[in-house]
Amino acid sequence: MNSFGRLFRIHIFGESHGASVGVVVDGCPAGIALGPDDFLNDLARRKSGSIGTTPRQEEDTPELVSGVFNGFTTGAPLTVIFRNLNTRSQDYAKLRETPRPGHADYTASVKFGGFEDYRGGGHFSGRLTLGLVAAGVVARKIIHPVTIGASLMEAGGKSDIQKAIEEAVARKDSIGGIVECRVQNLPAGLGEPFFDSVESLISHAVFSIPAIKGIEFGSGFNAARMWGSEHNDAFVSPDGITRTNHAGGINGGITNGNELVFRVAVKPTSSTSQVQHTLNFKTGQMTDLKIEGRHDTCIALRVPVVIEAVTAAVLADLMLLEQKVNRIIHSRTK
Amino acid sequence: MNSFGRLFRIHIFGESHGASVGVVVDGCPAGIALGPDDFLNDLARRKSGSIGTTPRQEEDTPELVSGVFNGFTTGAPLTVIFRNLNTRSQDYAKLRETPRPGHADYTASVKFGGFEDYRGGGHFSGRLTLGLVAAGVVARKIIHPVTIGASLMEAGGKSDIQKAIEEAVARKDSIGGIVECRVQNLPAGLGEPFFDSVESLISHAVFSIPAIKGIEFGSGFNAARMWGSEHNDAFVSPDGITRTNHAGGINGGITNGNELVFRVAVKPTSSTSQVQHTLNFKTGQMTDLKIEGRHDTCIALRVPVVIEAVTAAVLADLMLLEQKVNRIIHSRTK
Amino acid sequence: MNSFGRLFRIHIFGESHGASVGVVVDGCPAGIALGPDDFLNDLARRKSGSIGTTPRQEEDTPELVSGVFNGFTTGAPLTVIFRNLNTRSQDYAKLRETPRPGHADYTASVKFGGFEDYRGGGHFSGRLTLGLVAAGVVARKIIHPVTIGASLMEAGGKSDIQKAIEEAVARKDSIGGIVECRVQNLPAGLGEPFFDSVESLISHAVFSIPAIKGIEFGSGFNAARMWGSEHNDAFVSPDGITRTNHAGGINGGITNGNELVFRVAVKPTSSTSQVQHTLNFKTGQMTDLKIEGRHDTCIALRVPVVIEAVTAAVLADLMLLEQKVNRIIHSRTK
Amino acid sequence: MNSFGRLFRIHIFGESHGASVGVVVDGCPAGIALGPDDFLNDLARRKSGSIGTTPRQEEDTPELVSGVFNGFTTGAPLTVIFRNLNTRSQDYAKLRETPRPGHADYTASVKFGGFEDYRGGGHFSGRLTLGLVAAGVVARKIIHPVTIGASLMEAGGKSDIQKAIEEAVARKDSIGGIVECRVQNLPAGLGEPFFDSVESLISHAVFSIPAIKGIEFGSGFNAARMWGSEHNDAFVSPDGITRTNHAGGINGGITNGNELVFRVAVKPTSSTSQVQHTLNFKTGQMTDLKIEGRHDTCIALRVPVVIEAVTAAVLADLMLLEQKVNRIIHSRTK
Repeated sequence: MNSFGRLFRIHIFGESHGASVGVVVDGCPAGIALGPDDFLNDLARRKSGSIGTTPRQEEDTPELVSGVFNGFTTGAPLTVIFRNLNTRSQDYAKLRETPRPGHADYTASVKFGGFEDYRGGGHFSGRLTLGLVAAGVVARKIIHPVTIGASLMEAGGKSDIQKAIEEAVARKDSIGGIVECRVQNLPAGLGEPFFDSVESLISHAVFSIPAIKGIEFGSGFNAARMWGSEHNDAFVSPDGITRTNHAGGINGGITNGNELVFRVAVKPTSSTSQVQHTLNFKTGQMTDLKIEGRHDTCIALRVPVVIEAVTAAVLADLMLLEQKVNRIIHSRTK
Repeated sequence: MNSFGRLFRIHIFGESHGASVGVVVDGCPAGIALGPDDFLNDLARRKSGSIGTTPRQEEDTPELVSGVFNGFTTGAPLTVIFRNLNTRSQDYAKLRETPRPGHADYTASVKFGGFEDYRGGGHFSGRLTLGLVAAGVVARKIIHPVTIGASLMEAGGKSDIQKAIEEAVARKDSIGGIVECRVQNLPAGLGEPFFDSVESLISHAVFSIPAIKGIEFGSGFNAARMWGSEHNDAFVSPDGITRTNHAGGINGGITNGNELVFRVAVKPTSSTSQVQHTLNFKTGQMTDLKIEGRHDTCIALRVPVVIEAVTAAVLADLMLLEQKVNRIIHSRTK
Repeated sequence: MNSFGRLFRIHIFGESHGASVGVVVDGCPAGIALGPDDFLNDLARRKSGSIGTTPRQEEDTPELVSGVFNGFTTGAPLTVIFRNLNTRSQDYAKLRETPRPGHADYTASVKFGGFEDYRGGGHFSGRLTLGLVAAGVVARKIIHPVTIGASLMEAGGKSDIQKAIEEAVARKDSIGGIVECRVQNLPAGLGEPFFDSVESLISHAVFSIPAIKGIEFGSGFNAARMWGSEHNDAFVSPDGITRTNHAGGINGGITNGNELVFRVAVKPTSSTSQVQHTLNFKTGQMTDLKIEGRHDTCIALRVPVVIEAVTAAVLADLMLLEQKVNRIIHSRTK
Repeated sequence: MNSFGRLFRIHIFGESHGASVGVVVDGCPAGIALGPDDFLNDLARRKSGSIGTTPRQEEDTPELVSGVFNGFTTGAPLTVIFRNLNTRSQDYAKLRETPRPGHADYTASVKFGGFEDYRGGGHFSGRLTLGLVAAGVVARKIIHPVTIGASLMEAGGKSDIQKAIEEAVARKDSIGGIVECRVQNLPAGLGEPFFDSVESLISHAVFSIPAIKGIEFGSGFNAARMWGSEHNDAFVSPDGITRTNHAGGINGGITNGNELVFRVAVKPTSSTSQVQHTLNFKTGQMTDLKIEGRHDTCIALRVPVVIEAVTAAVLADLMLLEQKVNRIIHSRTK
C-alpha cells in the first residue's frame, strides 16, 4: 500500500529520473498558513552538498499544486511536486546485468518483472524522501507546539562524526550511523493498544525510509539486559512524569506524557567507490562491479530531517485521531 | 485501529478478566483444513508453567465460532474465542491509586478517561496474545512451505538462559531478553517500496506485542558500524542468493529470497516482587508499592511463538497480495 | 473486506447454523452507558413473528463479550455475540444440486469453491444482520441527539401494507417493498467531496444488507425528470435551511443541515412457496424446486431497523471524524 | 477519505481554478502498455462542446508524471496530471454571499470554515472527474476482456434526448437524465458478502461523481413491486446463466456471471440561466441570483464515460482481489 496514516494520510509518487517526485497529503485540516517558504529549511537540511553527501545539485523547488488557497490549506488534498531537472543520461544497461549489492535493483526486477524504471533507483530512490519531508513540514504545523528533533549521534561507529566521514572519504568507502529522535510537549494518551501502538506506527513509518535497519524505543535493546526493578520508571508527579525514562515515553503502546525517545540504525550507503565482486546475472559469472559517479559517503547525514518528518506525520495522525473521541464523550458525560 | 493486514486481516478483542478474549480473521482463503487440534502446539508454547513463567493455570481452549465448516475454512470471517475461566477476584482499588510503573495502568486511564477495564491489565493484558497466536496458526497454513522459527537467544544479558532465570528468581526480580526470528523458503518480491516495506510491516506487527522495545533486521544496529563494502551482500547465484546476509533478506523493503532474519528486544516483566517507590495519584504522595501475586520472571520466554505468529500473519498477507498482481499480468504479457 | 467505517468500525461474523453470529465494533468512545437491555427494542423490531415474517423463534439474546465494564463502554473493542440455539437439522443436499434462484447459493459456491457453510444461507444469511442492529444500537448513542427513523412506505407496490401481505400470503408468494429513512438534527458539514460523499457511504452500508436493490436520495430518480430551476433548493435561513429539500439534505456529498432523506428498494424474499423451474447442476436437467419450510412473505417488514442501524453507523463515523479536524484548527486560528 | 479501492487504489486532487487536477493510481500491475494516446477517446467523450454542454474549451492533455516507463506501467504509483490552462478570472465575491442553490458552496464553507478554494467550485468541481476518467482508462486494461458500456437512456424525462435538450436550451433551464450501465464478460465470484458487496462498491464509487442522486441494480425499484416467483431468475445453464436477469448479475452481493446492469439518476445541472430567489447570507435578506456564464444544459451527457470509469476501477480492484485467494488454495487442495 502506497499510503500511510488514517486521518493524516500520505501518498508518494515519482521516480529518480522521471518527470517529478511528489506527495499527496489527505486529511490536512483547513486553515493552516502554508507557502513554499515553509518548506525551505527542512529541504535544505535534507539536501546534499556537505562533506559526505553527494554533490549532485538537485532542484528541490516545491510546487504547491493543490490544497492551498490564499496562503492557507483548504482541507482538500494537498499536493506538492518537485520536478527532476538535473537527471543525467547514463548507461544503465550494465546495472541491469549486475544488480548492485545492497540496492533494490534485484528485488525490484523480481517484483515488477523487469518493467520497473531502473534509472537511478527509479521509484526506490532516496529522492522520494522529498515527498516525506514535504509532508513533515505540514504535519509539524498540525502538532504545534510539539517539537521533534533528530540528530546523528554516531557515524561509522564513532561519535566524532566529522572525523568518521573524513576517514571514510579517504578509504573511498561508505559508512552508516545512529540517529536519535526526541519529541517534547507530547500529550499523554496517543496510540492504541496492540496494532496501533505508538511504537508500531513510528517503526512502520521509519522503516519506510531507505537504509534503515533497526529501531529501539527508550532503553531499547539495553532494556533486555536490565532488571525489572531497574527498568520500571517510577511516577513522580500527577501529570505522569517519571523519574527515569527507560520506556522512552510509551507504556502499553500509548504515550505517557514524558519525552518520546527512539534511536534508528542507518546502514552504510550501498553505493561505494570500492570494487565489488558480484554476479553478472546475464553471463552467470562473478564479475567486478565499480559503481561510477559520486555517491554519498554517509547517507545518515541526510536522514535526521526525514526521521523528523515521518515522526511528525505519525503524531499529526494520532493527535487528530485522539481529538475526535475525547470531545464527543467529554461533552456528554460531564 | 484494532485491525492489521490488508487481505489477511486480524482483529482482536477481549479483556483479561472479562468473559473471553479472541480474534476475528478476515480474508482467510476457503479450503484450508483446520480444527481445534491445530492450535494446541502453539498454544502450549505460549502457555505459562515453566520456571520463569507465572503458574496461573489459564484455560486456553480455542472455540472455532465461525468460518470453519466440516473441517475446512469457508472463506467467511474466522472467529476463535478463548473463555476466561480462571480469573480471580482481587482488590484492584489500590492499583487505581498507584498505577504500576512500566504498565499501561496510567496511560489507559488517561486515554479512556477511567472507563477502562483495569482488572488484570484489561484489554492491555498479555492474555490478548492468545488471539495473535491463533491467527498465526491459520497464517502458517497459508504460507506453507515457508517456515518460521523464533527463539530466545539471551535472557537478562546472558546466553545461558536457564541460569539467568534462576538468578532472577533468587533475586525476586524480573528480566528481559533477545528473541531472534528466522524465516526460510520465502519467495523474493514480497513487500512494497516505502510504506509497506517488509521491515515496516513486520515491525508494526511485532511492536503490537506487549513488552517489545526494539527490532533490528539483518546486521541491524551493527550495520551502522560497518563499512559499505563490508555490509553489501554480493550476489552469488541467479536466484538471488548472496554470500553474506547482512541485509537480513530484504533489499529496498522487498524480500530477496535469502533467509529473513530479525531480532527483537523484550523488556523485563513490569510486575516484579520488588518494592517500588512510586506516586500515589490520589494522595499525591510517593509510596511503596508491592505487586501481589505470582508473576512471570521472564516474559520473554513466552514471546517467541507470538513473534512467529505475527510474522506469519504479515507473510500470509504479503503472499496473498503478491499472488494477485503476478497472475493477471503474466497471463497477459507472456 | 469484512469491515466498515474509518473510526467507528464494524466487523461481523458467523453463520446461520453455526455456533453464533456477532459483531466487533472498534472505535467506540469510552464512557457510553451500555447494557443488554439497550438492545432489546431494536432486536424486537428486527425479529420475526408478525404476519408476513417467518415464525422461526430465534434466540436473540445479546452477550456483551468485551468492551463494556461496569455498565459503560471502555473504549476497547466491543464484541456482541448471539448464539444460534434454534437451528434445525435439515436436508441441504438437495439445495447443493439446485441452487435456489435469487439466493447466494450459486455465487457462494463459485466464490468459495464449495467450502462455504451452505446450511440456511450460511454466512450470507439475514441472521447476520443481528450484528448490524447491535452496532446500530451503539452508534445511536454516539450520534445523540440525531434521530433516525425508517419505515416501510409500500409493499408489493401497495401503500396498504397489511392488505398487500395478506394477498401475498394467500397467493403463497413473496413481495418486496420501499423503505424510507429520515434523519433529523444532523449537523451540516459531514461527508467528504468525492469518494466519501454521504451518499457513497450510506449506499455502501445499505447495500450490505441482503435484498436491497436500489437507493435514491432526496428526489432521487424523479430528480432526473425535473428542471434545474425546480430542483434547486433555495436557501431561506442562515443555518442553511432550504425551502424545498429535493437534495435530501446533501450538497456536494456533504450534509447541509436539512433533513437527510433516502429511499431503498427491497426485492421480494427469494424463498417462496411457489414451485420454481430451475437447473439441477448435478444432472444438468431443468427441474422443479419447491423450497420447504416457512418463509418471510415480506422481508421488507424487517428491514427498517437494519437500515436505521447502518445509517447510524455511518453517521457515528462521520460525526467522530468531523469532530477531530474542526477542533484543532478552530483553537488555532481563532 | 480521499482514496478508493483496496488493491487498485485511486486518489484524486486538484481544484477547478488551481494549477492542475490529477490522480494517483496505486496498485496498478506492472507491464501494461500505456501512453497518452490511450486516454484520448475517453477524455473526448467526457469533454464539453456538444449541444447541451458548456463550450468552455478545457485543455485535457494528460501528463503521465510517474509509474510509466518505456511505454509500460512499472508497478509504481501512476500519476496523471491535467493542467488548468483556461481558467478565467471572475468575480466570485458575490457567490460568497449567496451560495448557489444545489451547489456545494454552502456545505464546503461550513465544512472547511471558509478556507476552501471557492473559485469555480474548487475541489468540488466536475473537472475533478478528469482524474476518474484517467483511472478508468488504466482499469479497463486490467479487466480486459470485460467490457463496460454506459449510455444516457433519457434526459429530462424524455427518451428523445436531442429534443429534450433543445427544449431545455430554449427554456434556458437545465435537465437531468438516467444513465444505464452494462458490463459483459464478467466472471462470477466477484464481491464479498455484506460490506463489500458489488452493489456496495459500485454505488460507493458512483455516488462519488457529482450530481448522482440514485442507483438501482437489475430491476431495482421495480423489483419492490414484483412477486418473488416473478423476480427470481431461474438458472438455465451450468455456467450460471439465468433465464431472466432481474438481479442485474448479482446474487448475495457477488457477481453470478450474467450481465451486470445498473441505472443511475443524474440530477439537473445546478447552474442554470434562470433567476433564483435565495438567501444572501451576508445581508440576511432573500435576493435574486442569476449565475453568469455559459453552463451545461444537461450534465448527464458527460456522465456515461465517468460511470464507466469508476465501474472499471471497482471491477479492476475486485478482479485483482479475487485472483489472489483463488490461486493459492487451488494449487494446495487439488
